[in-house]
Amino acid sequence: MPRKDLLDIVSLSREEVDHLLDQAGPFKELFTRSVKKVPALKGKCVLMLFYEPSTRTHSSFEVAAKRLSADVTNFTVEHSSVVKGESVRETIDTLQAMRTDFIIVRHKMAGLPGVIARHTRACVVNAGDGSHAHPTQALLDAFTLREVYPDLAGRRVLIVGDILHSRVARSTSQILKKLGVEVAYLGPGPLVPKVGPENIRRFTDYNEAMRWNPNALYLLRVQMERQEAQFFPSLREYHKVYGVTSERFRQIADQGIYIMHPGPVNRGVELCDEVMNYPRSLINQQVENGIAIRMAVLYGLKPHNGESD
Amino acid sequence: MPRKDLLDIVSLSREEVDHLLDQAGPFKELFTRSVKKVPALKGKCVLMLFYEPSTRTHSSFEVAAKRLSADVTNFTVEHSSVVKGESVRETIDTLQAMRTDFIIVRHKMAGLPGVIARHTRACVVNAGDGSHAHPTQALLDAFTLREVYPDLAGRRVLIVGDILHSRVARSTSQILKKLGVEVAYLGPGPLVPKVGPENIRRFTDYNEAMRWNPNALYLLRVQMERQEAQFFPSLREYHKVYGVTSERFRQIADQGIYIMHPGPVNRGVELCDEVMNYPRSLINQQVENGIAIRMAVLYGLKPHNGESD
Amino acid sequence: MPRKDLLDIVSLSREEVDHLLDQAGPFKELFTRSVKKVPALKGKCVLMLFYEPSTRTHSSFEVAAKRLSADVTNFTVEHSSVVKGESVRETIDTLQAMRTDFIIVRHKMAGLPGVIARHTRACVVNAGDGSHAHPTQALLDAFTLREVYPDLAGRRVLIVGDILHSRVARSTSQILKKLGVEVAYLGPGPLVPKVGPENIRRFTDYNEAMRWNPNALYLLRVQMERQEAQFFPSLREYHKVYGVTSERFRQIADQGIYIMHPGPVNRGVELCDEVMNYPRSLINQQVENGIAIRMAVLYGLKPHNGESD
Repeated sequence: MPRKDLLDIVSLSREEVDHLLDQAGPFKELFTRSVKKVPALKGKCVLMLFYEPSTRTHSSFEVAAKRLSADVTNFTVEHSSVVKGESVRETIDTLQAMRTDFIIVRHKMAGLPGVIARHTRACVVNAGDGSHAHPTQALLDAFTLREVYPDLAGRRVLIVGDILHSRVARSTSQILKKLGVEVAYLGPGPLVPKVGPENIRRFTDYNEAMRWNPNALYLLRVQMERQEAQFFPSLREYHKVYGVTSERFRQIADQGIYIMHPGPVNRGVELCDEVMNYPRSLINQQVENGIAIRMAVLYGLKPHNGESD
Repeated sequence: MPRKDLLDIVSLSREEVDHLLDQAGPFKELFTRSVKKVPALKGKCVLMLFYEPSTRTHSSFEVAAKRLSADVTNFTVEHSSVVKGESVRETIDTLQAMRTDFIIVRHKMAGLPGVIARHTRACVVNAGDGSHAHPTQALLDAFTLREVYPDLAGRRVLIVGDILHSRVARSTSQILKKLGVEVAYLGPGPLVPKVGPENIRRFTDYNEAMRWNPNALYLLRVQMERQEAQFFPSLREYHKVYGVTSERFRQIADQGIYIMHPGPVNRGVELCDEVMNYPRSLINQQVENGIAIRMAVLYGLKPHNGESD
Repeated sequence: MPRKDLLDIVSLSREEVDHLLDQAGPFKELFTRSVKKVPALKGKCVLMLFYEPSTRTHSSFEVAAKRLSADVTNFTVEHSSVVKGESVRETIDTLQAMRTDFIIVRHKMAGLPGVIARHTRACVVNAGDGSHAHPTQALLDAFTLREVYPDLAGRRVLIVGDILHSRVARSTSQILKKLGVEVAYLGPGPLVPKVGPENIRRFTDYNEAMRWNPNALYLLRVQMERQEAQFFPSLREYHKVYGVTSERFRQIADQGIYIMHPGPVNRGVELCDEVMNYPRSLINQQVENGIAIRMAVLYGLKPHNGESD
């Protein structure tokens, strides 16, 4: 039976992951055409329910849905009505009653997309929930890495930054492990979880981590709005200790290591300016692939409501 | 000649009301299909002019328009330009010059949709103007009640809350009277108008109102942002005196009385939590029917501008 | 080779201007039809990148794009990410990676649309950049004036207000000169540039300017949010010295002089109320023509990316 929702990576089988990555290929090819649109979801309604602002992820889903010919409606969240916990249930009832076909949800509360999925017939896609999961980011990361390494097994990816609070780190390391990639974490001690998935190496020292010989560095975005200040004294200090400085960049370029980042980059924090023109930076490919992957996800999900077709 | 605008309920004939309710039925059936869309308004432009925020009503109109294949444009109101009264005339001139086909307007100024309707060739739908009218809410309420009582004549609906300031109370009681329903009001004395439509019973005591034997209770939303505090000391007090408490709910359920609410519910104020799972709560049906009714309204209005087709 | 971007007026040849104005005519005729839509840009993606709010220009472009059957996506700008200069380059990379077909950009930084145009394959339309240019406004102004004066050569237009900081004044005077119109400026001394295009008369006195016998007065909007206060003591004073007062309006009407304004009008500042009903006010025509011109622009631009069709 086809899957109704995409809530996280752990619940996907290896076969489902491969299938989604394979499906995204033809959608990406579509982007080289003059008309980048297919009628696959013509007449379907996609509702965007974003409680946290996000220009890029929001636009990426919106463009993906429109390239599938779906109709997109923003359910602009009244912040006053979000305050009280009970209103979530009410909102879910409303969404269910509107009989939308897809709900794309981003919320700071881990698990909310799952709650919505259980209470509506619509297909629900998690666009990021707290520090829990960000499955479409993980899929686009895997798709991007597979473009440069068609056989991913045994490749090494070093994820750098605040691992503990990052839904990107969590989902992306899960998908990479599923695909046989070796994953390691690098970050300030308190921000690198001690427990968690097996077989993940933990580093707190940059040089030590580099001696592990990663094929790609995945830099997490420093969430400047969060109180991460307690873990490192300044952004300048973060750059010096965990960032790709100009000096480190020369070494990275020499070794041909790929650079990834979920965006938007804080330049001079995670990455120095020179990385922007680095041929092995995959950051822009990640953006483009994000639309293709989201098309594959929307195309692949099916409601379980026995609708007549 | 077909109607150009929907501004209020009083100006609709009984035949027009029946026709709109009948039209909404097939649109609602459409929602059980996989593709919930018809090409009826293909190529038409619907402009959303919301001076007051409203997630639900806005989304409901937007989804309704898109299910009719219309193009929807938000005319995001610059709040700075709204401040001065004269700008309304300027905005109307702009809308007229843009030659949009439909204007959906919500504004705190009673009568503004009528002014726009007189000065533009577009079909204008009032989505709520001050405490004047909310005709699509009234139509969806009537449609919902007719689903459970195909013959509405002689049924009894008790509207509870701040009747005086409520455009919902006004429009919904008008349509119910037109359809032969008996209407009564219950609320704090100063919030229940002494003058107004004939043949409407006024109650200030809950128990007395229930002895009138209503078939449905229609709970108005307490507008927490308004200064209704002067009329009741606290929300807890409101709940105790006019809300559906747990104790009252048991009696209501025993008697099989239907529950309606325009949404969003303030839980623990108008209604206790138990009502959410009550089979005779019509609240979610109201949301779903809102889209069907708005499709019927947009489908039924015709411009008077002698356009060539 | 067809043009990829519309960034300003100076880079357009006279032939290109004439061609765009000619193209807008049939689009405007479309607005008298019941279905105001053509399939010209079906399947194309138009991305709206507005860093400065603008209800009218935004809506005008959006309606124009939808009447050409394009898909429109708002790239809602996170204001936090706009703060730092380097993020502009990042945003451009993101837009390029999204492979949108058109980017409509408004930004307070003069020259930004040109930077985006050089770094993306998309067709870029400048919707206003700082005090540099506003080419679609200039085109709609020329189109509107040509409707009343099919032969524009030798006609006289007096532009009134803060010329120095106005991208409208700059672009509109450039296009009018290109079409053989004589242009003069009227405004407070410090707000009328001493240097600039040749053959433009400068006035600081209203009566003197009127003795120049203009065929049309083009009133610039006073930007109340800017600190223009330093140049004139009050809005009342501005109205008295440079506005169309009731008294001046009688003279203007007697002489049959046309009135133009880019909107929205500050009534009682640039113009007295009586102008609103003046048959020779072209203000509403400007709004309507804005959509037609923007359709012509979007229709006329072509990407240089050798896409397969």
